[in-house]
Amino acid sequence: MRNYRLILEYDGTDFAGFQYQPGERTVQSTLEEAISKLAHASGRVTGAGRTDAGVHALGQVASFWAELPVPVERLAAALNSLLPRDLSVAAAGEAEADFHARYSAISRRYLYVIRQRRQRSGIWDRYSWRVGDEISLAAMSAGSRFLIGEKDFAAWGTATGRSKSTVRQVKQIKAGRRGRFVLIWIEANGFLKHMVRRVVGTLVEVGLGRRDPEDIQAITQQRDIRLAGPVAPAAGLCLVRVRYPQMEWDKSNGDENLFG
Amino acid sequence: MRNYRLILEYDGTDFAGFQYQPGERTVQSTLEEAISKLAHASGRVTGAGRTDAGVHALGQVASFWAELPVPVERLAAALNSLLPRDLSVAAAGEAEADFHARYSAISRRYLYVIRQRRQRSGIWDRYSWRVGDEISLAAMSAGSRFLIGEKDFAAWGTATGRSKSTVRQVKQIKAGRRGRFVLIWIEANGFLKHMVRRVVGTLVEVGLGRRDPEDIQAITQQRDIRLAGPVAPAAGLCLVRVRYPQMEWDKSNGDENLFG
Repeated sequence: MRNYRLILEYDGTDFAGFQYQPGERTVQSTLEEAISKLAHASGRVTGAGRTDAGVHALGQVASFWAELPVPVERLAAALNSLLPRDLSVAAAGEAEADFHARYSAISRRYLYVIRQRRQRSGIWDRYSWRVGDEISLAAMSAGSRFLIGEKDFAAWGTATGRSKSTVRQVKQIKAGRRGRFVLIWIEANGFLKHMVRRVVGTLVEVGLGRRDPEDIQAITQQRDIRLAGPVAPAAGLCLVRVRYPQMEWDKSNGDENLFG
Repeated sequence: MRNYRLILEYDGTDFAGFQYQPGERTVQSTLEEAISKLAHASGRVTGAGRTDAGVHALGQVASFWAELPVPVERLAAALNSLLPRDLSVAAAGEAEADFHARYSAISRRYLYVIRQRRQRSGIWDRYSWRVGDEISLAAMSAGSRFLIGEKDFAAWGTATGRSKSTVRQVKQIKAGRRGRFVLIWIEANGFLKHMVRRVVGTLVEVGLGRRDPEDIQAITQQRDIRLAGPVAPAAGLCLVRVRYPQMEWDKSNGDENLFG
């Protein structure tokens, strides 16, 4: 058996999230099914981030142990021929024995796309949250500064992993405008369940003037999830990059660069 | 009866193009069906550009005569509640009696998206053409200069309208890189059938070094469609804007600004 790693892209619209759930079409089970068609033997696939139903990925990382008859340089193409149209492998490689897509990752970077329009869109609603009223980037940025650093994010999400700790380190939050779109990038060593979407939902309330930027600090300090704003819709969210220590391989696949 | 105009957005993937065809799911028939649910009386819908099957739109313009019980400021929302997910109205207005989405238009602007990757993508293949080898923007731009101006474009497409003339005026061709994407914008007073896609297919051959930029001039001068390169795939193409004389209303709806 060898340890493999993949960079995955998917349109999350028709998936019930990354993680296996009985009877549901998930990224994990769809990928495991494709691998099992190639493999003499294989185990569970692990993902770097457990994206929710409807959340997209341009740089999800997965790893799995398997005995594959396919040379690693042809693995991406072999899997792509077996996967459905809305899930693909951008790159595949062999990993060190101690590599684990989830536990080895040192940071995850998400992009959230907001479209400043009142009418729905035949193209963009699939990949964005529609907010008609004008969002102030300055107010949103002022609020986001209170989230940077290592903090207890209990007000922003729930722990779902092995550890019950709600401490995470947010490395960067950046907001920008492209035409009628507002884009928010958030990078952290890890995220609690719904954390990115709850942060975005609350920052948008700040950007709309319904809350003060300082509210973000108060919510964090009080560690009470009922004080935070709404969870922003899944469609606007995309996992764009996962970083690993001392690894050249984890370079961005570049597809999110379309957004600058 | 009043004359109405609409700006339309659609994901062309699941449409057999704009124009009505018996038994096919087209943009025109889908829109006519929605209008007929609202209208006391209505006629045929006209589109500014007859986009092919699989071609997208962020700024298609349509016009139609109808007797509608809905005030015009609520027309976009009313139609959006009746249209399927992949087709939407970005804006609606009442037009002058002599306005005709097709014949009144003075220019159409298309965006073509090329993704420089070898592996297919679960997200981007829907909206782009995948070209693995490196495309030279300089060579492509050098070739595109031979297409600017009023010329006989018989080598680049076929006339399908009332007039059999193959003379068109190309106003601008611009190419740019965004990360791993190559974007090509083309604006003309009108286009022949498959003209944008054949121009893109041929410019990409120039960009890959398989043809000289001067070939573009020779092909145009010889007016022989067999000399031109392949028709680029529909998925990469999007109608982003239609202009009308002395009209404020035809402003870009701004959604293509995501691409700079």
